[in-house]
Amino acid sequence: MKKNYLLTPGPTPLPPQVCEALARPIIHHRTPQFQAILKEALEGLKYVFQTSSDVFILSSSGTGAMEAAVANLLSSGDTAITVEGGKFGERWTELCQAYGVHAEVIKVEWGKAVRVEEIKAKLKATKARVVFTTLCETSTGVTSDIKSIAEVVKNSEAVLVVDAISGLGVIDLKTDEWAVDVVVSGSQKGLMLPPGLGFISISQKAWKLIDAARSPRYYFDLRAAKKAWAQADTPFTTPVSLVVALNAALKMLKQEGLENVFTRCGKMAESVRAAAGALGLKLYADASCASDAITAINVPSGLDGEKLVKTMRDIYGVTIAGGQSELKGRVFRIASMGYINEFDITLALSCLEKVLYQMGYKFELGAGVKAAQEVFLVL
Amino acid sequence: MKKNYLLTPGPTPLPPQVCEALARPIIHHRTPQFQAILKEALEGLKYVFQTSSDVFILSSSGTGAMEAAVANLLSSGDTAITVEGGKFGERWTELCQAYGVHAEVIKVEWGKAVRVEEIKAKLKATKARVVFTTLCETSTGVTSDIKSIAEVVKNSEAVLVVDAISGLGVIDLKTDEWAVDVVVSGSQKGLMLPPGLGFISISQKAWKLIDAARSPRYYFDLRAAKKAWAQADTPFTTPVSLVVALNAALKMLKQEGLENVFTRCGKMAESVRAAAGALGLKLYADASCASDAITAINVPSGLDGEKLVKTMRDIYGVTIAGGQSELKGRVFRIASMGYINEFDITLALSCLEKVLYQMGYKFELGAGVKAAQEVFLVL
Repeated sequence: MKKNYLLTPGPTPLPPQVCEALARPIIHHRTPQFQAILKEALEGLKYVFQTSSDVFILSSSGTGAMEAAVANLLSSGDTAITVEGGKFGERWTELCQAYGVHAEVIKVEWGKAVRVEEIKAKLKATKARVVFTTLCETSTGVTSDIKSIAEVVKNSEAVLVVDAISGLGVIDLKTDEWAVDVVVSGSQKGLMLPPGLGFISISQKAWKLIDAARSPRYYFDLRAAKKAWAQADTPFTTPVSLVVALNAALKMLKQEGLENVFTRCGKMAESVRAAAGALGLKLYADASCASDAITAINVPSGLDGEKLVKTMRDIYGVTIAGGQSELKGRVFRIASMGYINEFDITLALSCLEKVLYQMGYKFELGAGVKAAQEVFLVL
Repeated sequence: MKKNYLLTPGPTPLPPQVCEALARPIIHHRTPQFQAILKEALEGLKYVFQTSSDVFILSSSGTGAMEAAVANLLSSGDTAITVEGGKFGERWTELCQAYGVHAEVIKVEWGKAVRVEEIKAKLKATKARVVFTTLCETSTGVTSDIKSIAEVVKNSEAVLVVDAISGLGVIDLKTDEWAVDVVVSGSQKGLMLPPGLGFISISQKAWKLIDAARSPRYYFDLRAAKKAWAQADTPFTTPVSLVVALNAALKMLKQEGLENVFTRCGKMAESVRAAAGALGLKLYADASCASDAITAINVPSGLDGEKLVKTMRDIYGVTIAGGQSELKGRVFRIASMGYINEFDITLALSCLEKVLYQMGYKFELGAGVKAAQEVFLVL
């Protein structure tokens, strides 16, 4: 018997309520029946985004929502600041370049978080209209201090955009309270859905840029989205089944309560970090900015990191993530978000220990699992 | 008891095999397991697209795939020919304009098909790089003669793009044999899936334009898609569950056989036309170009067309489509595509007759259903 367990940073496992919603007969999207579903989704999204501003559902992956931010806020020839501390920070720069936007890049050493002072200095030195950041850099397991960054950006002319694809519904992000202008996300992480939906929230300050921007945009045109959503409609056919399932997931998040979700994910990440320590493994991210959504652990020297991940997945059915880009083979990553709880973590750690043991790594069997258990014992 | 029946031109009803596939536990998209699924999807899509060229899956609705065509083939300042005979033909013009492309519009009277001579003349008179057409104009129920259009375009410098969102897997479209360069489609019509996937096929002739084009593009960049797909991968996270369900639907289409699918849909459309005639109702589309995917029927004078559609849907659970844009309230539309068979059509017609009767329209009860039955009796 092979049984599968998923602990990757997206897609995350689907709750049975979501699977059931996906399997329902489909309904037409231009009906009062579906309008009621859209309205419910919008209310739930505002709760999870912690905003009273507009939130839109896009038929796209998270990257589509990132492109929507760039294409709607900026014009060719504009300047924007991008923070690059991993693969997904780099995506902001690539998107800017694709649209002829001059990207003032803040290079951050991978595994570290950007220093707010650097953003402050860049804002002073340039005429950037937008600052693009990442809540949780999935490739490195680093969380940015968005609250402090927002403190700086809100007093400038610039608009703050946060890629929260890997952080929304996992890590606290007080969109309105902190004055984050644009939050971008996707369905397959904290929201416990299959990939296929992108989300974007827009502040009043951001709308001013959107109305003035001249980049080509049609499918991702947020002005059209705003007009349609005002009538509980979407400009183009929306992924009906995914939206129905979204409401099932949003209901679960509301029932658990956002604060409890953040605590659960935080505890799980803490337990993974504790386990790594007990196993003599080093964390890739700096302790000061380790993410509560995903933990990247260095592959011990002499061990084949890709083989470790493959063995866990293909022999034992436990899927964690390997490293991306320059970290390929150098780290492995365990998610602590979405429909995952403490016992999924101990399960994954016991499999990790088994494979490490078989690969000849020296450690006390059970030490990682025990360290995690100890974390979970504390309320 | 209220039971629901769907006969709209997208989404079409989901087969149980598709519902089951959607409800499965999700798997990670960067695994050999999912690569095998992608390869199978690609093979199935080539069968349905009738091409040996590249076909890509996009995480978008059909409009996203249309934008992919415009953004990848053209640059600002280029000229393209668009054929406007309804709401979806107009979308090509709007997309061109959004990208700074000069659209040479061929206006076609709604309900009629474009004359090939007009395309020939426009090609001679302009330096158009692309001709944008629509296989089945969903808003009017008109099918274009793509075979003859392709005959003309293939001998020019221009590339032929066909919006087959409402026609793929419903009406014959011999992509390679007729030399259609780019075919765009979506998941929620002939392919019997929920909305959320876009598709696009690309000929060698089209790749030359793509490599030369300078429009901004990132999420929809087909060069990145080509690179990823060569390794059975996608540039961005793909809607895993929808792709798994796609394979279930493609398997059904293969088992039925494309020719049989076309015959089934053709028969159903013929039966709707026959029923309309027997009920004294007029078809909106010209008889010479009436679509086998969808039939638009004029609302009899004195009757409230919107009330007709609403009553069928909200009181009796039979959802057909009303008119769009300028046809709002003036036509109603019955789909004959996807997971629909002859008895769904007679069911819908019996409901239509009931509501027409209740609204005071004069006709012989049962005449429409009988006319349809007669069509289905003939093999």
